[in-house]
Amino acid sequence: MPKQSFRQQIIEAGLRVMFRQGYMGSGVRAITAEAAVPQGSFTNHFRSKEAFALEVLDRYFEHVKGLVSQALGDATLTPRERLLRYLDIITERLTDDRCVRGCLIGDFSLEAVQHSDMLRERLGEIFTEWRRPFAACIAQAQAAGEIASTFEPVELADFLLSSWEGAILRMKVERTAAALERFKKIAFQTVFKKER
Amino acid sequence: MPKQSFRQQIIEAGLRVMFRQGYMGSGVRAITAEAAVPQGSFTNHFRSKEAFALEVLDRYFEHVKGLVSQALGDATLTPRERLLRYLDIITERLTDDRCVRGCLIGDFSLEAVQHSDMLRERLGEIFTEWRRPFAACIAQAQAAGEIASTFEPVELADFLLSSWEGAILRMKVERTAAALERFKKIAFQTVFKKER
Repeated sequence: MPKQSFRQQIIEAGLRVMFRQGYMGSGVRAITAEAAVPQGSFTNHFRSKEAFALEVLDRYFEHVKGLVSQALGDATLTPRERLLRYLDIITERLTDDRCVRGCLIGDFSLEAVQHSDMLRERLGEIFTEWRRPFAACIAQAQAAGEIASTFEPVELADFLLSSWEGAILRMKVERTAAALERFKKIAFQTVFKKER
Repeated sequence: MPKQSFRQQIIEAGLRVMFRQGYMGSGVRAITAEAAVPQGSFTNHFRSKEAFALEVLDRYFEHVKGLVSQALGDATLTPRERLLRYLDIITERLTDDRCVRGCLIGDFSLEAVQHSDMLRERLGEIFTEWRRPFAACIAQAQAAGEIASTFEPVELADFLLSSWEGAILRMKVERTAAALERFKKIAFQTVFKKER
C-alpha cells in the first residue's frame, strides 16, 4: 500500500515543516519536498492544507498524550511529583532541541486560529482532553494533601497547561530553558503546594 | 510631508493586518491595501518586511507601555492592586475586541521568531524592558508586605508576564475571557499574595 505509506510520510514531514514555519508559512511544496514525494500526492491524500493541518495537529497530540501517560501514569511517584515529572519530560525534550521548537498546540493557538475555525475548534477540544488526566492527578494530589484544595482540579489543570504554554513562548524568544525552570520553581512552591 | 504621513499610515495598517494574519500571512500587498496607499510606497519607506515588522512591533510596544504606566502609575492603588489593575485593563481591551485579537508580542514570540533573528532579539529586549516596571511594583508590594518575598521581583515579573501570555493564548482558542479571569483569580490568591 504505497499510497498509505505516502500519507503517513507527508504527515510526519508536515509536522516538521509546520514546527519550523508555522501554519501560514508552510506551503504544500515545502511539505512534499520535505516528505520527498511528488507534489501531486498531497492532493491525492488531503482535501486542503487546513484539513491536512488538522491531521498534523492530531498526530502531534497523540505524541503529547504518550508523554502525559508516561509521566502521570508513573506509579513510583506521588500525584504531585507526577505533574512535575511531566514538565520535566517536556523540558528535556525542548532542551534537546536547543529550545528552538516549542509546542505545536501553542503555536497553532496563536497563529492558525486566525485563519481556520476548524483548527480553532479542534484546539478547544484538545485543551479539554489534555487537561482531563491532569485534573484527575491534581484531584489525587489534593486528596493526599499534597496540593491545597482551594481551587477545582479542572481550574488548576487549565491554569497549569496555559501558563506552561506561556513559559514555552518565552523560551522560544530566549532559546534557553530559563522560563521553563522558573515556571516550575515558582508554581510548585505556590499554586501546587499543600495548605499551610 | 505626505511621505512621512504615509509611513505612519502603513505602520498602523500593518499592525491591524499582522494582528489578523500573523507575520508570515501578512503580504506587502495586503498591508498597502489596508493602508490605502500605492504598493510602491511600502518599499519607499521600508527596507524589507522584516524591518517593517520590527517597526510595527515597536509601535505596539509603545501602546502597551502606555497601558503599563496607566495601571502601575495609579497612586490611588496599592502596589499589588496596580498589578491586578494592569491585567484588568488588558482584559477589558481584549474583551471589547471579542477575544479575537491577542497580544502582538505573544503572537510574534511563537511565530515570527522562527523566521527572523532580528525580531527574536528585539522580542527579548522587549520582555526585559516590559518586566522592569512590574519588578519595581512587585518590589514595592513585597516591601509593603502585600506579596510574599520568597522570590526575586524580577523572577515574579517574568512569571507574571509569561503566564499571562499563556492565558491570552488560551483565550484566542476559546474566544472568551475565561482563561484571563482564571489566571487572575488563581495567581493572585497564591503567587501574588502575602506570606501567612
